[in-house]
Amino acid sequence: MALMTGEQYIQSIRKMKMEVYMFGKRVDCPADDPILRPSLNSVRMTYDLAQIPEYQSLMTVISPETGERINRFTHIHRSTDDLRNKVKMQRLLGQKTAACFQRCVGMDAFNAVYSTSFEIDKKYGTHYHENFKKFMFECQSKDLTVDGAMTDPKGDRSKAPHQQADPDLFLRVVERRPDGVVVCGAKAHQTGALNSHEIIVMPTIAMGPEDKDFAISFAIPMDSEGIYMIIGRQSCDTRKCENTEMDVGNAEFGGVEALTVFDNVFVPNDRIFLNGEVEFAGMLVERFAGFHRQSYGGCKVGVGDVLIGAAAVAADYNGANRASHVKDKLIEMTHLNETLYCCGIACSSEGAPTESGSYIIDLLLANVCKQNVTRFPYEIVRLAEDIAGGLVVTAPSEADFRDPKLGPVIDKYLRGVNNVSTENRLRILRLIENMALGTAAVGYRTESLHGAGSPQAQRIMIARQGNLEHKKALAKAIAHIQE
Amino acid sequence: MALMTGEQYIQSIRKMKMEVYMFGKRVDCPADDPILRPSLNSVRMTYDLAQIPEYQSLMTVISPETGERINRFTHIHRSTDDLRNKVKMQRLLGQKTAACFQRCVGMDAFNAVYSTSFEIDKKYGTHYHENFKKFMFECQSKDLTVDGAMTDPKGDRSKAPHQQADPDLFLRVVERRPDGVVVCGAKAHQTGALNSHEIIVMPTIAMGPEDKDFAISFAIPMDSEGIYMIIGRQSCDTRKCENTEMDVGNAEFGGVEALTVFDNVFVPNDRIFLNGEVEFAGMLVERFAGFHRQSYGGCKVGVGDVLIGAAAVAADYNGANRASHVKDKLIEMTHLNETLYCCGIACSSEGAPTESGSYIIDLLLANVCKQNVTRFPYEIVRLAEDIAGGLVVTAPSEADFRDPKLGPVIDKYLRGVNNVSTENRLRILRLIENMALGTAAVGYRTESLHGAGSPQAQRIMIARQGNLEHKKALAKAIAHIQE
Amino acid sequence: MALMTGEQYIQSIRKMKMEVYMFGKRVDCPADDPILRPSLNSVRMTYDLAQIPEYQSLMTVISPETGERINRFTHIHRSTDDLRNKVKMQRLLGQKTAACFQRCVGMDAFNAVYSTSFEIDKKYGTHYHENFKKFMFECQSKDLTVDGAMTDPKGDRSKAPHQQADPDLFLRVVERRPDGVVVCGAKAHQTGALNSHEIIVMPTIAMGPEDKDFAISFAIPMDSEGIYMIIGRQSCDTRKCENTEMDVGNAEFGGVEALTVFDNVFVPNDRIFLNGEVEFAGMLVERFAGFHRQSYGGCKVGVGDVLIGAAAVAADYNGANRASHVKDKLIEMTHLNETLYCCGIACSSEGAPTESGSYIIDLLLANVCKQNVTRFPYEIVRLAEDIAGGLVVTAPSEADFRDPKLGPVIDKYLRGVNNVSTENRLRILRLIENMALGTAAVGYRTESLHGAGSPQAQRIMIARQGNLEHKKALAKAIAHIQE
Amino acid sequence: MALMTGEQYIQSIRKMKMEVYMFGKRVDCPADDPILRPSLNSVRMTYDLAQIPEYQSLMTVISPETGERINRFTHIHRSTDDLRNKVKMQRLLGQKTAACFQRCVGMDAFNAVYSTSFEIDKKYGTHYHENFKKFMFECQSKDLTVDGAMTDPKGDRSKAPHQQADPDLFLRVVERRPDGVVVCGAKAHQTGALNSHEIIVMPTIAMGPEDKDFAISFAIPMDSEGIYMIIGRQSCDTRKCENTEMDVGNAEFGGVEALTVFDNVFVPNDRIFLNGEVEFAGMLVERFAGFHRQSYGGCKVGVGDVLIGAAAVAADYNGANRASHVKDKLIEMTHLNETLYCCGIACSSEGAPTESGSYIIDLLLANVCKQNVTRFPYEIVRLAEDIAGGLVVTAPSEADFRDPKLGPVIDKYLRGVNNVSTENRLRILRLIENMALGTAAVGYRTESLHGAGSPQAQRIMIARQGNLEHKKALAKAIAHIQE
Repeated sequence: MALMTGEQYIQSIRKMKMEVYMFGKRVDCPADDPILRPSLNSVRMTYDLAQIPEYQSLMTVISPETGERINRFTHIHRSTDDLRNKVKMQRLLGQKTAACFQRCVGMDAFNAVYSTSFEIDKKYGTHYHENFKKFMFECQSKDLTVDGAMTDPKGDRSKAPHQQADPDLFLRVVERRPDGVVVCGAKAHQTGALNSHEIIVMPTIAMGPEDKDFAISFAIPMDSEGIYMIIGRQSCDTRKCENTEMDVGNAEFGGVEALTVFDNVFVPNDRIFLNGEVEFAGMLVERFAGFHRQSYGGCKVGVGDVLIGAAAVAADYNGANRASHVKDKLIEMTHLNETLYCCGIACSSEGAPTESGSYIIDLLLANVCKQNVTRFPYEIVRLAEDIAGGLVVTAPSEADFRDPKLGPVIDKYLRGVNNVSTENRLRILRLIENMALGTAAVGYRTESLHGAGSPQAQRIMIARQGNLEHKKALAKAIAHIQE
Repeated sequence: MALMTGEQYIQSIRKMKMEVYMFGKRVDCPADDPILRPSLNSVRMTYDLAQIPEYQSLMTVISPETGERINRFTHIHRSTDDLRNKVKMQRLLGQKTAACFQRCVGMDAFNAVYSTSFEIDKKYGTHYHENFKKFMFECQSKDLTVDGAMTDPKGDRSKAPHQQADPDLFLRVVERRPDGVVVCGAKAHQTGALNSHEIIVMPTIAMGPEDKDFAISFAIPMDSEGIYMIIGRQSCDTRKCENTEMDVGNAEFGGVEALTVFDNVFVPNDRIFLNGEVEFAGMLVERFAGFHRQSYGGCKVGVGDVLIGAAAVAADYNGANRASHVKDKLIEMTHLNETLYCCGIACSSEGAPTESGSYIIDLLLANVCKQNVTRFPYEIVRLAEDIAGGLVVTAPSEADFRDPKLGPVIDKYLRGVNNVSTENRLRILRLIENMALGTAAVGYRTESLHGAGSPQAQRIMIARQGNLEHKKALAKAIAHIQE
Repeated sequence: MALMTGEQYIQSIRKMKMEVYMFGKRVDCPADDPILRPSLNSVRMTYDLAQIPEYQSLMTVISPETGERINRFTHIHRSTDDLRNKVKMQRLLGQKTAACFQRCVGMDAFNAVYSTSFEIDKKYGTHYHENFKKFMFECQSKDLTVDGAMTDPKGDRSKAPHQQADPDLFLRVVERRPDGVVVCGAKAHQTGALNSHEIIVMPTIAMGPEDKDFAISFAIPMDSEGIYMIIGRQSCDTRKCENTEMDVGNAEFGGVEALTVFDNVFVPNDRIFLNGEVEFAGMLVERFAGFHRQSYGGCKVGVGDVLIGAAAVAADYNGANRASHVKDKLIEMTHLNETLYCCGIACSSEGAPTESGSYIIDLLLANVCKQNVTRFPYEIVRLAEDIAGGLVVTAPSEADFRDPKLGPVIDKYLRGVNNVSTENRLRILRLIENMALGTAAVGYRTESLHGAGSPQAQRIMIARQGNLEHKKALAKAIAHIQE
Repeated sequence: MALMTGEQYIQSIRKMKMEVYMFGKRVDCPADDPILRPSLNSVRMTYDLAQIPEYQSLMTVISPETGERINRFTHIHRSTDDLRNKVKMQRLLGQKTAACFQRCVGMDAFNAVYSTSFEIDKKYGTHYHENFKKFMFECQSKDLTVDGAMTDPKGDRSKAPHQQADPDLFLRVVERRPDGVVVCGAKAHQTGALNSHEIIVMPTIAMGPEDKDFAISFAIPMDSEGIYMIIGRQSCDTRKCENTEMDVGNAEFGGVEALTVFDNVFVPNDRIFLNGEVEFAGMLVERFAGFHRQSYGGCKVGVGDVLIGAAAVAADYNGANRASHVKDKLIEMTHLNETLYCCGIACSSEGAPTESGSYIIDLLLANVCKQNVTRFPYEIVRLAEDIAGGLVVTAPSEADFRDPKLGPVIDKYLRGVNNVSTENRLRILRLIENMALGTAAVGYRTESLHGAGSPQAQRIMIARQGNLEHKKALAKAIAHIQE
């Protein structure tokens, strides 16, 4: 079966009977909802670009197993080139959407489960890897979008899964049947759930023997019985319902997050990839997180490119583009953004094969990558607001601008350089607002902090991977210390 | 006449016939509009606290001229204690509103015009100072809120007022009559205009001889003929119309900004404080900006206190308050916030008398203060988002939470520590969202950057006030350099 | 007795029989040693400036007790003006020496012991305060320089005083006699010991009941039997012995640190200010540290002024002074330096009376002050090196420059702008080197980190003084949270 | 001919008759001078490691032209793997020397001249590339160390070469002869000159038509007639003459810088690689600088590894290694250091072939790499000083420590955890001092700022390579702006 076109993808999602709630109501057709649609458009871009010859080598791969051309998002990395191309594809998509295009979690889950299931099978003689490959081939051949679900609600952060007052605060097996298991729980902050055909569920932390029922990984269709989503509010979400293209800033693309509830959901045996082998929960988490921390060195860089460009356009329109401090701020933004890219590329090119033959990023550098992502986008945003000027948060609405009385007044007073229309000036400021404070700020700022693990999670990994003992030995050798 | 109560203030504003537009429509009664009302409540707090004995010494002053108790916002600083108390009052109000309470611009304009008009009169034998004092006494005795309007739209930033394609891009005198002048133009980003009885207009930059018509300062009532306001959109502004207290984060207080247009507005002679004496435009700007840069070392610190507190509460509710990295982040937030306060206090206690006898802050330190304000709130916000967790941008709406089916699910899955209600957890996260990305972020972030002058404006002043020649001489003396 | 002149001070120190060791040898006359002399010159400046009418109001005070004019370094602060003037005096001295002038520790010890001894007496009916006042009057009337000694070697940082393998790692009473006590131990990093007439010893941490013998404070002359000093090496210390003025950078002034050993030293009863009242050890430490953290908001700012000036001169000599990035870096240096000053001033003007009537700084802000001092000087140094250029670390020696063959070559090739002599260019670069990497870097960098307590010590105090509970209450009020 | 052993290398340098001056005197045998010898040892490490099988694949390459095994420092990069291995080799050498090993400039000059000379020849039909290859083969077969010399003294920074008061401030051709040219001038800050067999001279900036005589590149032996060096002073340089191993911190390795003068030096035609083709000066500079900016993403990272290790050892010895703030600071140091490594790796793996077939790094990312190197080592140093404690700058000399009276006292009082010898504690602190303020600080700090071009030079390149127009187009597309 061929790669889907963007339009085919939209139709395929439209056909699914997902259970989605927002503002206290069930959403009839998410694909047509003005708040949700932009997030679907972002995923669609992963299909559209795959159809364009110019981007084919980045967006698609010839499957080493089947010889068919598949979307890179469904591919298992086979080399460091694959890992680097992943990052480049993500930067490209960030540039084209200025938003989260959501399909990465599935790709990262694919690669984490692929290699981990291989190692579980090796130890226990289970058939998880086979299960996964079957699932994977199906996704590849049907060109499906897959969500990867890791983050449990977690409740009281000072307690382990089995210590929580409510055991469902970590997703778990509540019933074991001959043909499969029944699970209960929820996954928080799910960015792509809504726009995915399938969902891969993984545990969220390393586990001990008493957490056996929480050590579960599987994949099922998003419209399986018992799954439903409650959409999270984003800053400025309802602007998208106001019939204003200008005020939205980015009228076409966006992201969305959902609390995804699993209310006694049945999982058949052949879709299970981990089931109680607690000591592998940590490996699965570490690998998924590692891949996903790499991802941020691509996608956020692409979004950053748009923001830098927007700030530069705003400077042009303000007549400030030749001021040395403005030029210097654009350099600083570029410098910070490319530093993130360096980290994304470096953890990729330093990747190595796993036992399964698939390639994994360098874990230390991937964590370093993400740690920088928790910092630099905030400074890039600050600089963008600096260059844009106060008008970025005080401009009147499009309704005012279209008003016969007020429009000409706004046009007169909010014009920057005389040869640029006030509308264009307002449009670029709204885009900056969108990325700095609006719907896209959720993805570019807060998600940069917490997505793929909060800052402290990376610091723990950096401590673990940094090989301090080796560094101590180096220092003692230089200082001629013998103990 | 006595100080107004908060309620009297509201009624006094309600009585005015201001011309206000929003979303393409005239707002009938701004005082009752859900989007605008919170900003009125913030100003009201300056009246309410003045009535409370505990705060009397900070909020009010015995006028040295009349012996009457007046609100500090209408007071001319007579000592460094006055200057410091101003900052402390502002911190208090920031703590009580978590928003911009708007009345500072008037106070800062008062103090700038008072001392500058004295010096103009001294040079030119004009009567601006007398004009101003008459106006001032009226404001004091009636306990009025006064807006201070400085920022012109400015058009092409690379051009002076008289070089703009449209001369109205800087407010100017278009007609000179025996009884006064007629002005045209606009003032951008006016935070308090809507909730003020009077407005003091000032020029926005130092000027040369060819800018004579732009060198104009005066005060008139906000409902004067020809004045109208177009309200700027804030991030998440319309959430306030959704009948949700929770989702708004800060249901009671806020700020608002308006493009304030002067369409052939008449100004009587006795309300004019500068009229063509171009060489004093710079002094007026410098002093107003100086006072206002000091202000930010008070108000933003108070708002910061609330955000630090909110982050600490969120940590408690997440069960993460004993994690050493969380404690350390709260220390860092406190450290940054108190550094801002140090700057506000220092420029005050290093203040000095002007020729008129009123006191002015140390200009170098006031600019240093504001420069830090353009940086630290952003880092404080980032740390608050870090501590809060991703839920701050992905929590479902109050409508979902109140829904009979979804509510219990949300209550179950979004609970943190077991003994705190999910509602309270969501409330504190919404407050953080409000300050980090929502309506209050406009004031706490972007306004911290651009209010009272953009970062580069402070750097120019720091260069000018830093006395580099003295420092060079110190270095040469130490290095035994003779030239 | 009148204030001493600088020369009288030198003679008074020369007369003392201190036991000083350096490079494995006893130093016969420290006052004439080329490595040690510059540190004496720095203290001398505190006497010299006190003789100059221009600086009298800053450098001296009329004693409220005796009506005599005394040096401010021996004064007990009686007002917030006193506290601010202290900081200004310190900035002045930093500007005049570009080094540590050492006399502050005594002043800060004075003020800490004065108020603490008052409170001990009040509780226990002891006579420490009287003892101290007698000692103080002597120091004031004789215009003595007093060292304040707090930092014990501390040994294993994870252990309390009484848990150390060697009990002497914290200074302690080893014998109690009717006429006094005998102490053993050492105080590390003593900057002024060598150039002081007297030394005030204080405990270094808060203590528990089992630390009674370590809870001791007293004052004795620096040449008391049993006291000796081992001078610490500074970066580039021996350059001062090379007979090169140029290479030293700052030929006249410097600081020095000594490990000061107390080998069974007798302390008479009337010189004891604390003796076993363990619960007051913490108060004494907290107050001394508070005063000393304030001090850094003065002295380091003065030194910073010299470094900023030196960088500006270097830019002039390089012909780079009009480059916008150079101007911007000088602004940033000034901004950071003045931020430190703001903190020094603010914690002073927010000071308050102690029970004894003396004034103490605001402890929260003093700790914030010092915390910034642990950061900004490093960035100021980095920017100075940036502006100076690589030559700051690669310039040939003065010996090369004075050589008949090499001198002209160096003169030719290391000239910057043509109208400035190469010698002057090298002199200013050597001054920058001195402050960035040489003897003065010890004081301006590392001492800024660790002097008056390491960074983490301030963070603990900021946590303790920051009143997080109040901030939480503010946030809950705004979020309408009732618990 | 085989690769040289370290010892053979030392002998080969010893045999050369270089003219070296220091402290106003000619140095008879630089290889035996205590100040200079450590820098020779650092270069030697590039030979020693090449002999060790474990490091062979990193340190050596099979020449694609001759099939012989050559040292990587003499290799022309043929792939992105070569580029990455270069960085890894540099990190290794930084780890083994904690200093500048100097041989990189030659390697970077090799690669810059190789590709640029190819393009000059293509345009002009010259034979520079052939000249260079002949020279290169000689260096490879003899395993020579080559210096690369770019930085001219530059005089007045606001003037071009031909505008300087003294034309020699940029190295230039003063005579053109049939068999070659005669040059005059100097190259500043030459780190490896002293320990190199040959030197490649290159111009230092892009040039215009009037700078023809300055557009010269060539290679000659370091002991050619007319070349002499004046050694620059480093912080703490003379400690190496004091017969103290401990106080030096790093007794074995170091770097050194020399002002290298070319006093009418003859260059034969077959050693010339550029001669007046002014438009290629910029390309040569840009490529050399690019390669050298990449280098810093390797060597400084290795040095950083040692410093991180030293800080960790110091924490162990202080008994502070379990304090959470200490662990967190070690994580931050690691994070910053690995970020630099990411940049070094990324600009390598994104390299591309030049017209000559050799590989060049990605120029944007290489400049981003170096820009970070101008910042992070300073913060790493600050954190190292923080962890080490004040003793790092106040410890007594080894002479004191070895003294029969003082030694036991120091041993007693400067002991940290009881089971580590005071000597070892002092050794590790001296190593930190060495890297933070001493001889190695010259290389790790100031050279990180200015080596391979000062920070502003990278910013200009980032601006030029950042493709802002593309970013603007991306933003306009998202904002639906049509112009």
